[in-house]
Amino acid sequence: MFELDPRLRQDTIDCGSFSLCRLLLMNDCRYPWFILVPQRENLREIHHMEEVDRQQLWVESVQLAFWMERFFTFDKLNVAALGNIVSQLHLHHVGRTINDTAWPGPVWGHQPAIPYSEQEVKRLQQAVLVAFADMLRRG
Amino acid sequence: MFELDPRLRQDTIDCGSFSLCRLLLMNDCRYPWFILVPQRENLREIHHMEEVDRQQLWVESVQLAFWMERFFTFDKLNVAALGNIVSQLHLHHVGRTINDTAWPGPVWGHQPAIPYSEQEVKRLQQAVLVAFADMLRRG
Repeated sequence: MFELDPRLRQDTIDCGSFSLCRLLLMNDCRYPWFILVPQRENLREIHHMEEVDRQQLWVESVQLAFWMERFFTFDKLNVAALGNIVSQLHLHHVGRTINDTAWPGPVWGHQPAIPYSEQEVKRLQQAVLVAFADMLRRG
Repeated sequence: MFELDPRLRQDTIDCGSFSLCRLLLMNDCRYPWFILVPQRENLREIHHMEEVDRQQLWVESVQLAFWMERFFTFDKLNVAALGNIVSQLHLHHVGRTINDTAWPGPVWGHQPAIPYSEQEVKRLQQAVLVAFADMLRRG
């Protein structure tokens, strides 16, 4: 049975589930940063996925990327499956701007996160719900 | 017309072309590190690709990942499209081990690369040629 890694749960805000992936907002207001986690047990690598799941991961990733591009302002989207610290497969989507705090370096391991306010969390969760009304169920 | 970004050309060793992507070996012997560059003009983001190209990117990425897993020894594959420094779309595949020099941090920006010897470059190019004999053309 799929269970979200405790470290991912701790660092993020649950925004619901697509048909394959849990959608998480990284609780770090320095960047627009969403994570897709395929809800499959013991999955660590993209190339180990079933083909049909991998196809669905890219569908959900591309939809997320287009929405992020519409909703936020950034110069470059970083899309990455690293997993050195949390091995459960998860795909980062981070909107980067040339004056963000880590630019042009990677965001991972770059100083402590700055959490969102409760109000801002609600605003973003609501925006996600509206954008993906037909794709998302609340977790 | 597609032209490989000069920075990518400088930092890597050309291993030939798949039907969509140029296959590059990062000239850094600290990690097994290959890069796929879709040979399309002015392409910066995965979600901006034509659907048929994106499908092909994942075919080539998955084949590369499986081969890397057979040929090298590592604990986790990092797959990432960042592009903060080189905006031309390119997809990193980095085999990470828990005692590599940057673990568990990201490899990007982690101290200067250590180039391969000429002999090791030849060995790896030959291995790639054999592994992908039916998928790859040189030059």
